[in-house]
Amino acid sequence: VTEPLPLSLADVRAAAERIRGVAHRTPVVGSRTLDARVGARVLLKAENLQRAGAFKFRGAYHCISRLSEQERARGVLASSSGNHAQAVALACSLLGCAATVLMPTDAPPSKRRATEGYGATVVEFDRYCDDRERLTQERAERDGLTIVHAYDDPRVMAGAGTTALELIEDAGPLDVLVVPLGGGGLLSGCAVVAKGLRAATRVIGVEPQASDDTLRSLAAGRRVTIEVGATIADGQQLAVPGRLTFPVVRALVDRVVTVSDEQILEAMAFLFERMKLVVEPSGATALAAVLAGELDVSGLRVGVVLSGGNVDSARLVSLWKGRGG
Amino acid sequence: VTEPLPLSLADVRAAAERIRGVAHRTPVVGSRTLDARVGARVLLKAENLQRAGAFKFRGAYHCISRLSEQERARGVLASSSGNHAQAVALACSLLGCAATVLMPTDAPPSKRRATEGYGATVVEFDRYCDDRERLTQERAERDGLTIVHAYDDPRVMAGAGTTALELIEDAGPLDVLVVPLGGGGLLSGCAVVAKGLRAATRVIGVEPQASDDTLRSLAAGRRVTIEVGATIADGQQLAVPGRLTFPVVRALVDRVVTVSDEQILEAMAFLFERMKLVVEPSGATALAAVLAGELDVSGLRVGVVLSGGNVDSARLVSLWKGRGG
Repeated sequence: VTEPLPLSLADVRAAAERIRGVAHRTPVVGSRTLDARVGARVLLKAENLQRAGAFKFRGAYHCISRLSEQERARGVLASSSGNHAQAVALACSLLGCAATVLMPTDAPPSKRRATEGYGATVVEFDRYCDDRERLTQERAERDGLTIVHAYDDPRVMAGAGTTALELIEDAGPLDVLVVPLGGGGLLSGCAVVAKGLRAATRVIGVEPQASDDTLRSLAAGRRVTIEVGATIADGQQLAVPGRLTFPVVRALVDRVVTVSDEQILEAMAFLFERMKLVVEPSGATALAAVLAGELDVSGLRVGVVLSGGNVDSARLVSLWKGRGG
Repeated sequence: VTEPLPLSLADVRAAAERIRGVAHRTPVVGSRTLDARVGARVLLKAENLQRAGAFKFRGAYHCISRLSEQERARGVLASSSGNHAQAVALACSLLGCAATVLMPTDAPPSKRRATEGYGATVVEFDRYCDDRERLTQERAERDGLTIVHAYDDPRVMAGAGTTALELIEDAGPLDVLVVPLGGGGLLSGCAVVAKGLRAATRVIGVEPQASDDTLRSLAAGRRVTIEVGATIADGQQLAVPGRLTFPVVRALVDRVVTVSDEQILEAMAFLFERMKLVVEPSGATALAAVLAGELDVSGLRVGVVLSGGNVDSARLVSLWKGRGG
């Protein structure tokens, strides 16, 4: 017996209506240099130009806009040191709702400042001692807050899927769609759209080599928990696929591939120097797979999601220096 | 007796038809953070995402597409170590025309490689010994080449003006339009558009402090030649305004202001960190003037042209390191 998927194309279309005029409709950009280099027509969806710097705003805003008035009056809770934190904080400020964000004590000060800058209350926890899941649950129950999960929520997945809807509306039919893969919210949302619009479109997820939990889970046929290694792709350091996202990925995604940190840096440098776009390591993983020749895309129309751009200049300088050094 | 201006709104509209589908229609982007910071609605025209990395492609392609078949068969000649070189090289490769580019021997190797990468022949000259103007004329006559000037040509000015046409079409009416100013091709083209569409729009040009030839020429009432100082804004190091561009600037531009290197770096950092856009120093001068509070834009709708993005990662790293250090 196959359970129905937690997400449909209609859900994503409804989310697109809900976020219209609030989320940016980010541009789709291309480059003849890129096309010549990979021998395909490549269309990049620039979610690094999204509000709060990443696709995460789509899901966070959509989810919070669908809460009841009572839920919004009590406030929401998120746990994230990254792009989801800023997305929830911004969405709450737009929807007039209090946001509390649990962040590890060692989160980058710039991320904390950005989250607080959007008006959220940051609560610290010790990443090495505290049980994050339990803390989140306890805090939510104690204060009557509604948890907005970073990916494992159909409303968040539907919001993320609007990325692919816009890409395909603007770029036309795709032979292949390549998407960064961490918790799986973006990939599952985009897969529902791509397959729903045209079943022949191949959908590919890209993980960092050091965090290949989905690749291994697909091989095992069930969600397996891995030891996450060191990688510059901090947005994808997850130990286990999502409970809701994994079934969608398993049902609809044609292939998951991995990329090395070196391949990610190569893609970031290409985006910087040739496309004039600042893209963070996790945001560049899908393009990294295409540039590295990991995929057979010769002669095809290939959509690639650049999922975020939140890397500060000091970090970029240190990444550049490490490159080839 | 006032001479007629060398450029009209109709010329720019015709140029827009000519470059349609060849030049990118670059996105107009905004940011609530930016709006809050300057107290205005700011709409950025991202010409750093233009083909060959700068607005220059518009004028170069338009000009070369308007040459006769005989002229194109003989080939074109440009003199530039910067964005115009790459723009002419790319335009020629698209129009099936031979390009020769005069470049100083000390031009950055990356710019030379990019120009040659588009198929142009690079001819070196010594910036300190050779008379560039004379060299260009002699070479053109000797080889029967048509010179494509970087700004002082009505076809180049009309092509550059399409930047403002698209900005206003996409963003709606503007109270103020702020444009980087070097030779004056971009500013004069944009001024003809902005004033032609709505006479009440204020048009402002922005020069680096170290290269304020237009500001001083406006004060003197005639084109004056200055000693150009050191500045990071390498695209605007010009000693004298253009013969054709200056009358347009004088007739239509409301004000010229200058910005310091520090203000330019501040704007580049904002664009990098908050907008995820790579913009070169000259490309960021117009935004620098807005961010620095040099202009009274409170409560207004302000268009700002980001004119180019050709700064390589090594240079950006060295600029960052110099900043506040």
